[in-house]
Amino acid sequence: MNENRFRRWSETLIPTLREEPQEAEIASHMLMLRAGLIRRLAGGLYTFLPLGLRALRKVERIVREEMDRAGAIEILMPALQPREIWDQSGRYDLMGPTMFRLRDRQERDMVLGPTHEEVITDLAAREVKSYRQLPKTFYQIQTKFRDEIRPRFGLMRAKEFIMKDGYSFGRDWEDADRSYQTMYDAYTRIFQRCGLRFKVVEADTGAIGGKSSHEFMALADAGEDGLVECDSCAYAANLERAERAATAGGGALPMPPGEQKSAPREVATPGRKSIEAVSSFLQCAPGRLIKTLIYLVQPRRERHGGTPPPPRAPVAVLVPGDRDVNETKLARRLNAAAVALADDATIEQTTGAPVGFVGPIGLHIPIYADASLKGARGAVTGANKADTHLLDVALERDATVTAYEDLCVVRDGDGCPRCQGTLRGGRGIEVGHVFKLGTKYADCFDASYLDANGQKQVSIMGCYGIGVTRTLQAVVEQSRDADGIIWPLAVAPYRVIVLPLNPAQAPCREAAVRLADSLEEMGVDVLLDDREERPGVKFKDADLVGFPVRVVVGEKSLAQNSVEVRTRTDKQCVLIRLEEAPARIAGMCRV
Amino acid sequence: MNENRFRRWSETLIPTLREEPQEAEIASHMLMLRAGLIRRLAGGLYTFLPLGLRALRKVERIVREEMDRAGAIEILMPALQPREIWDQSGRYDLMGPTMFRLRDRQERDMVLGPTHEEVITDLAAREVKSYRQLPKTFYQIQTKFRDEIRPRFGLMRAKEFIMKDGYSFGRDWEDADRSYQTMYDAYTRIFQRCGLRFKVVEADTGAIGGKSSHEFMALADAGEDGLVECDSCAYAANLERAERAATAGGGALPMPPGEQKSAPREVATPGRKSIEAVSSFLQCAPGRLIKTLIYLVQPRRERHGGTPPPPRAPVAVLVPGDRDVNETKLARRLNAAAVALADDATIEQTTGAPVGFVGPIGLHIPIYADASLKGARGAVTGANKADTHLLDVALERDATVTAYEDLCVVRDGDGCPRCQGTLRGGRGIEVGHVFKLGTKYADCFDASYLDANGQKQVSIMGCYGIGVTRTLQAVVEQSRDADGIIWPLAVAPYRVIVLPLNPAQAPCREAAVRLADSLEEMGVDVLLDDREERPGVKFKDADLVGFPVRVVVGEKSLAQNSVEVRTRTDKQCVLIRLEEAPARIAGMCRV
Repeated sequence: MNENRFRRWSETLIPTLREEPQEAEIASHMLMLRAGLIRRLAGGLYTFLPLGLRALRKVERIVREEMDRAGAIEILMPALQPREIWDQSGRYDLMGPTMFRLRDRQERDMVLGPTHEEVITDLAAREVKSYRQLPKTFYQIQTKFRDEIRPRFGLMRAKEFIMKDGYSFGRDWEDADRSYQTMYDAYTRIFQRCGLRFKVVEADTGAIGGKSSHEFMALADAGEDGLVECDSCAYAANLERAERAATAGGGALPMPPGEQKSAPREVATPGRKSIEAVSSFLQCAPGRLIKTLIYLVQPRRERHGGTPPPPRAPVAVLVPGDRDVNETKLARRLNAAAVALADDATIEQTTGAPVGFVGPIGLHIPIYADASLKGARGAVTGANKADTHLLDVALERDATVTAYEDLCVVRDGDGCPRCQGTLRGGRGIEVGHVFKLGTKYADCFDASYLDANGQKQVSIMGCYGIGVTRTLQAVVEQSRDADGIIWPLAVAPYRVIVLPLNPAQAPCREAAVRLADSLEEMGVDVLLDDREERPGVKFKDADLVGFPVRVVVGEKSLAQNSVEVRTRTDKQCVLIRLEEAPARIAGMCRV
Repeated sequence: MNENRFRRWSETLIPTLREEPQEAEIASHMLMLRAGLIRRLAGGLYTFLPLGLRALRKVERIVREEMDRAGAIEILMPALQPREIWDQSGRYDLMGPTMFRLRDRQERDMVLGPTHEEVITDLAAREVKSYRQLPKTFYQIQTKFRDEIRPRFGLMRAKEFIMKDGYSFGRDWEDADRSYQTMYDAYTRIFQRCGLRFKVVEADTGAIGGKSSHEFMALADAGEDGLVECDSCAYAANLERAERAATAGGGALPMPPGEQKSAPREVATPGRKSIEAVSSFLQCAPGRLIKTLIYLVQPRRERHGGTPPPPRAPVAVLVPGDRDVNETKLARRLNAAAVALADDATIEQTTGAPVGFVGPIGLHIPIYADASLKGARGAVTGANKADTHLLDVALERDATVTAYEDLCVVRDGDGCPRCQGTLRGGRGIEVGHVFKLGTKYADCFDASYLDANGQKQVSIMGCYGIGVTRTLQAVVEQSRDADGIIWPLAVAPYRVIVLPLNPAQAPCREAAVRLADSLEEMGVDVLLDDREERPGVKFKDADLVGFPVRVVVGEKSLAQNSVEVRTRTDKQCVLIRLEEAPARIAGMCRV
């Protein structure tokens, strides 16, 4: 039994590593392994060691405090769920191989919940019946499972992870908008308290569905998500979602302005299939070319439809030669469940030309062109004929474009869709996501209520997620240096490490214990490094783990009745007199 | 946003039920549903509603505090685990259909951990390498999954539940014994703090294996486990494990003492197959009969053996006619992986007689007799011949008994195996279990360390489990009356309910809010029942949910500048003056 309330290094397990572990893919993953916070059990599956768990619990506590403060109600739903509720929402098939599926001993299909819209909506449908009970927001902090196609980066993309998921039910859109804003504000406070640099961006709603959504992106070069933000207004968006100004000068195709006289004419481009090859062969800028891509479009299925999906229909998509198609935007514009590039056979069958020589003129399928191509003239396109391109194409004149839409991947330097500013690119880690769901799930589960007039009304829902384990790693990804992690006070596993230089020596040991005791009593969580290791080893470990405040208790400073205090951020040492030490250190630890 | 820190009834979700829900099987299950603590998603799967979750978190906090106090180190291991580590321990097959199994998208076998010996031992093998790091006890509070053959009784036997599982690693048996005792003591404190009446009993080690174990049984008639305890000494045991005095008078077969002259002689017992039928036909007490049962015994497999198990060997088991065989004890005595009653065909083939007429004399298989049959004379047995029994059997003279062992199910009134006392029966809910594992898992995963001399030694392990969700329900099962739950202060979802009789009336509402505010500030968790319901409904709900202290704020008592305070246990109302109320109520809430 431990007489002192604080922990000693020797009583816990902090297996720091000198070497960089081979499995580590990005800096934060490497540091979490090296600092002894986590250990890998298998791909995408990690054990939280004592320090990792302490930091995780601090993130959880911040999330819980802010959720409670925002009036959200904590519950806990099962991870294991019966297939039936997923059939009811139509997502049993839709979720695909990302959802873990299993059978119980009675051969009943079960799933491991990757998210809980089905469970909560079913619950709300049964338990929330009157307008007097609305609006309500429920949340849980719970373990989720996703069979990621490529688990990686440690906790960043894991098969088992902890999520805060929340769900709001409102009487009407006004309720829903207010709940959404309340959660948005709570998320802002949560990530601020965690010490993250983050950006809120407009996001695509994806498989969860719904009207609009925002992502909270922790800014990091190693982030899996691209984002853009305007250098002039507040506009910011996930790259999947990002729009750009369609006007000329907003990154559009630089077409010659004046009237175009000549009709399109063929030019032989033998074997030149790529944009690069054609532009180099014809000696024109890639932006002069119009890229024509044939996509197969899978229409959205009706929710309860048991019939097989209709055949995939081909469409042509046109973008400037120097741009890429944003398939997320394309799918949304076409209201498609999915879009995919057509195979070579389909392309030849549809256009009569081999891949590389496809163009919009004469095609008998719907043609969607990027908005920047509106009015494009003097352009180069494929001729729908082997080894041939067309010059002097005027798109509106020569081709039958179904619609001009914003279809390109936005890039650094594009024009802002909201103002005259310029978009700047960056990368981020998605740590939070808020959605307006509308009635998508409420309809499936009949989550309705009686209004003040006794009329049945469908609830308007929202859903709100925070990747708790991912947030923890995002903090590490943002806050580190060559020596190790630099924990923000609010989520540090311990705020203070007390490091006696020579614990075998009684005065040194006892002064350290007394100080640790006083700090613990003042509510400062403190770890005592009681190991009989060389000071150099202990210093290195303290920096690697990244305790915000390091207190060294050594013979020399004790002779001056003092201890040496250093913060991890500025690495400046100050001598503090023993009698003042607890109060001054506690003061440094306040958040 | 809530300006006051306390919660209002209308802001949370407490769907109390007037009717008894059909699904409820025992009182606690019924009350947890009726009080709005939990809701069923599917068989053995429950959602914790706000009040249920609050109570659960309080149990968790008690567990965590006592584990930390005992020096155990908290970690968090994955629920999802790769098959390989279960193959390594030999339990992938052994766990049978109780373990949920699934495949990931790469068709790799995974399991949902029903327990974590494999993960922790693998971790310790990698991270604990020196005697200086030992002994250590790790624990986690985590969601477990078991595909119960018959999930029932709400949280009592669920498919998904929360467990505290702990694992100790020691240098030697002395370390292991000390860790075991430390956990034993911590468990005692935990269940005391939860307000449970419990008994620690000796238990069988079952599939987890190991040397010895104790179960912590919350006493309850609805408990799934039988237990006995001595009325004179400290002996207590799970019925599966319980022994009894083998001497005459200790519940043994009442055989006539003196010398037995006559040899066994046949008697026709046409169609009399059961003990009852024979004893009634022959007009002798059932205890005079010796019951002969043929069991098939599955020997223990070698751990890493890939060969199929050897055929099951038949043995005869003899017990007094009025007793039952304890198959758990039988399996242990025979060192068997499993025992099962033979089918009729095997019985006839082995004994030459149809079922109902089997006896020990002349059998050519091993015969195990209950110790109380040693020296039995003048007994009645089957004759291994249809429609025939034998009289005047003297077991030792007439049959070849391989061994006399304690093989019976113990019952109320049996003699204590440790003293001259008498065993008394009871029923309990297993809320905790401590095991001495020895080196079973450490051997499989090479969890060894270097001792002070640099020699490799295997760690001695222990494992320790608490059913956290089950403990919560055990509290309810023990602590209730006709009106509802009677929460012990330590685990009550809220300690105080403040109940304004008429919240629409400003003075009443404001006094209630002020009081709730003061209590919350003093650290007392309080719920304000702000519903505009009839007082009778609110009183009934308060009793049903079982808040320890109920404070009624009404016009009449307010006129006397007082509130009416009642505890759930004694139901006595006292008037307390408003200015004294916060301090006095806080005093009633101290634990």
